[in-house]
Amino acid sequence: MIRLENSSADNPDAANAAIGVDIGGTNHTAALVNAAGEAIEILRGHTDRSGGPRALLESLSRLLPELMTEARERDVTVTGLGAGFGGPVDFAAGRVLLSHHVSGWDDFPLRDELTAMSGLPVTLDNDANAGGLGEARFGAGQGASDVVYYNIGTGIGGAIILGGQLRRGPGSIAGELGHVTIFPDGPLCTCGQRGCLEAVASGSAIARRISELALEWEGRPALAEDFFPLVAAGHPAAMALRDEIARSLAIAIRNILHTLNPEVVIIGGGVSRGGALLLDPVREAVHNLAFPAAYRTCRIVLARLGYEAGVIGAAALAMS
Amino acid sequence: MIRLENSSADNPDAANAAIGVDIGGTNHTAALVNAAGEAIEILRGHTDRSGGPRALLESLSRLLPELMTEARERDVTVTGLGAGFGGPVDFAAGRVLLSHHVSGWDDFPLRDELTAMSGLPVTLDNDANAGGLGEARFGAGQGASDVVYYNIGTGIGGAIILGGQLRRGPGSIAGELGHVTIFPDGPLCTCGQRGCLEAVASGSAIARRISELALEWEGRPALAEDFFPLVAAGHPAAMALRDEIARSLAIAIRNILHTLNPEVVIIGGGVSRGGALLLDPVREAVHNLAFPAAYRTCRIVLARLGYEAGVIGAAALAMS
Repeated sequence: MIRLENSSADNPDAANAAIGVDIGGTNHTAALVNAAGEAIEILRGHTDRSGGPRALLESLSRLLPELMTEARERDVTVTGLGAGFGGPVDFAAGRVLLSHHVSGWDDFPLRDELTAMSGLPVTLDNDANAGGLGEARFGAGQGASDVVYYNIGTGIGGAIILGGQLRRGPGSIAGELGHVTIFPDGPLCTCGQRGCLEAVASGSAIARRISELALEWEGRPALAEDFFPLVAAGHPAAMALRDEIARSLAIAIRNILHTLNPEVVIIGGGVSRGGALLLDPVREAVHNLAFPAAYRTCRIVLARLGYEAGVIGAAALAMS
Repeated sequence: MIRLENSSADNPDAANAAIGVDIGGTNHTAALVNAAGEAIEILRGHTDRSGGPRALLESLSRLLPELMTEARERDVTVTGLGAGFGGPVDFAAGRVLLSHHVSGWDDFPLRDELTAMSGLPVTLDNDANAGGLGEARFGAGQGASDVVYYNIGTGIGGAIILGGQLRRGPGSIAGELGHVTIFPDGPLCTCGQRGCLEAVASGSAIARRISELALEWEGRPALAEDFFPLVAAGHPAAMALRDEIARSLAIAIRNILHTLNPEVVIIGGGVSRGGALLLDPVREAVHNLAFPAAYRTCRIVLARLGYEAGVIGAAALAMS
């Protein structure tokens, strides 16, 4: 367990706080987050992949009391717990459907387990919804009520926030923005369909295209993390690939703009660390593709919360 | 002016009603609609294309008092007027932006003119939003709160209804479902972009493809209205074209399902008169393309209100 003290976020005025729990395949994080969306204290553990839900709950049974103690010492009332899980969740039932990374999670009643452990009201959702809500409320979407969020990492997740509330739908499928079709005859996606946004613009799509193009960087075969340095260095094939990715994203955003006309579109996740190298061509392509009234009324921006987005968003779930 | 008495919709119990006005390039219709969404009386006029807004307002200045008289005779209170316009509207400003069919409408303050004429609170929106709201509240979406509506006529319009309310967005662009990109390198659309749903699945796209394919029907070159009879007759090229159109629509619906996970998707407009010849292959393709949890929780159905959808929907605008 690693203790991370967030020095800049110390806000003794906030009387209420929530606990956020972000559960990924590699790490899990639990934080005490105040009503301003500041993480007062963050605790992190490594996820024991072979241990499944029991190992995770055991780890949380150590982390959560620490946060509760911290809250008491600061005279802060903890009003609820939000958990963001790195895989599909049945929101209404409060159950994890499955994990792509860790075994033993099929149809696991995580919400009820966390309620029993913490004694708090618990809200469980997938991590993209949690991250999107966090960005909407406390990050790049602050002040807006209608926000669309893309989390572009190895895969692509998303979230739709309308009137400040997550849109989930009766099947908990709303916001699955990686699985909209961009190129109907495009490359095969992990979901079994062709040409999904995830199949053409995710980190794993970048890795695949880099190896297909046999790109090199500093005398060795390039990897996904070399992509933006290659673009920055003006490597023609990397720039062409960047333009392809920007176009795919811009088509997805055009369709969202014409469907929902949101106020803000936020691009987060590992791939968004490309910064202006990604954002500028995406904005330009959306400008060319979308109706002026939709483009003019929408800000397209990078996520702002960084690594803490997941846990702050998880806490935001509990503040809804 | 043609008077149409709707005999089946006579409901003397409804104490409140709204006036709906549906303004198209060929005809305009005004109706007294009760709280159950039944058109108590419908009046219709031909739109004088060269006369612009003044000719329309003159015609309405004759139709509206008739409906008000009818309301008084039936002891019904008219609570508002809704108008659906066949072209883009700035909802917040209550102004028509332009008409593709009729001149003189650029930036016309139709809401204020109708308020001055009727003395009623007026809600102005585009006709696809009006039709979608009508179908959601009183037609094929009755009882559902989250509904997506496609109006497939010469062009393709749409509407997004969430929590029973139309989603419009700050630029009044939400629900422009004809201008989502299905085939990024597909045929040119009237909007200037390539491969929009409207460019591949609208009535005018069908007409163009029929003439490209040089289809014949009963010994003469086929027209758009011959399309479904050709399909019904088992004409191979027409059936292949029908499958293309169904696939395009299914991709659009897949993307909507994964974005919003709505309860109902309604297909209306002239092309929807193809009935099961269109609906069955669309449903099958969506079933193959979409996540089971999204498909299972969504009904994909044909519109139910028929020709009256526009005017009933316009009245529904005033009941929101």
